[in-house]
Amino acid sequence: MTRSDDTLARLAAVIESRRGGDPDKSYVARLFAKGPDAILKKIGEEATETVMACKDGVPEKIVYEVADLWFHSMLALAAHGLTPEHVLAELRRREGLSGLEEFALRKAQSRDEEDRQP
Amino acid sequence: MTRSDDTLARLAAVIESRRGGDPDKSYVARLFAKGPDAILKKIGEEATETVMACKDGVPEKIVYEVADLWFHSMLALAAHGLTPEHVLAELRRREGLSGLEEFALRKAQSRDEEDRQP
Amino acid sequence: MTRSDDTLARLAAVIESRRGGDPDKSYVARLFAKGPDAILKKIGEEATETVMACKDGVPEKIVYEVADLWFHSMLALAAHGLTPEHVLAELRRREGLSGLEEFALRKAQSRDEEDRQP
Amino acid sequence: MTRSDDTLARLAAVIESRRGGDPDKSYVARLFAKGPDAILKKIGEEATETVMACKDGVPEKIVYEVADLWFHSMLALAAHGLTPEHVLAELRRREGLSGLEEFALRKAQSRDEEDRQP
Repeated sequence: MTRSDDTLARLAAVIESRRGGDPDKSYVARLFAKGPDAILKKIGEEATETVMACKDGVPEKIVYEVADLWFHSMLALAAHGLTPEHVLAELRRREGLSGLEEFALRKAQSRDEEDRQP
Repeated sequence: MTRSDDTLARLAAVIESRRGGDPDKSYVARLFAKGPDAILKKIGEEATETVMACKDGVPEKIVYEVADLWFHSMLALAAHGLTPEHVLAELRRREGLSGLEEFALRKAQSRDEEDRQP
Repeated sequence: MTRSDDTLARLAAVIESRRGGDPDKSYVARLFAKGPDAILKKIGEEATETVMACKDGVPEKIVYEVADLWFHSMLALAAHGLTPEHVLAELRRREGLSGLEEFALRKAQSRDEEDRQP
Repeated sequence: MTRSDDTLARLAAVIESRRGGDPDKSYVARLFAKGPDAILKKIGEEATETVMACKDGVPEKIVYEVADLWFHSMLALAAHGLTPEHVLAELRRREGLSGLEEFALRKAQSRDEEDRQP
């Protein structure tokens, strides 16, 4: 396994080990102690910051904000007993079924259809 | 390299190979043809859908929406010449420097400080 | 009553009159027919577009996107039997209680406090 | 002029009078002192909280969060020299042109069209 590959799995393990810890010492424990809504608010916040960073076009900021967005998504996954591997499997599934492109394209087309005839 | 590990790298390669393609055949080409704002709007949309899925508490929906959120984040990365590896490196860097927890906690504390004395 | 004043009240009445209408003829009926999540998705989307318009700094776009954001907020209010007057009353209440400023400042300070000691 | 009508205009005047004030005494001055991005982050945050409040279905929370969302939208307007009256005029313009419904429906249909043939 390469160093890069298991980053998300290792991060998920760190999250799991900290979520019940001391809220004064751990950011993860702190967010979990505040309750699930606190994590969801962070997802909305980090998505907005990602959009703003992209508008600014500064690569370091974009990477930083996407890292924050993914990290807080992983907290939401953990709060529901899920892991990044579930998400990666879903991404592979789409690719495997019929090609990622076709899947996403069909979804977009059916959404258009649905928009027209609700 | 394990199967799970290179999912994001492979997905990034798929995105790269499609972005200049036919917008009628490829969802990725379609979004890129619409311009960068179209990708950013999707990030806001998918983040909202992730929050809603978590509120509903249905695991399949959560995984589905986080996959959509990460996928569209990767389109934004690609639009700026960046890859998921940049994001994974940033996540490792935080962990490596001083422990992920300490990093995030310090960030939260300094944000509190900044909020108090703007 | 000035022309500007009852804009939101008149708009709320229009929304109310259309929400049960023909989804093929009315945008409002269409969104309501799709169910409450469709309205919430639009709020996330329009908030993102407002942020992007502000980043672009084009006044016409900002006004347009904030109008969209407020309009879709009003659909969400209507979906819960609420009106813009409830929101305006809340804004007046904050001002009336102890001054808008003091209220918001206290809220921000207590949020900082809470962030520190969850 | 009824009491409810000029709520937004009065609120805009309060915002205008505070934006250059002491950041330690005024929430508005505080946000303006942090710079425009701080206001935009709040819009993303409050939109997410509005969505969450609607999911929870608690009327008081919904009103509270929409009030927060509109308030922070008004800070963004003020940051660009705009007022709520500009937004209300845009809402009236749509209604006046061809009926609010037709306008929004055409917009949705053209967006669907655009989605299909980018």
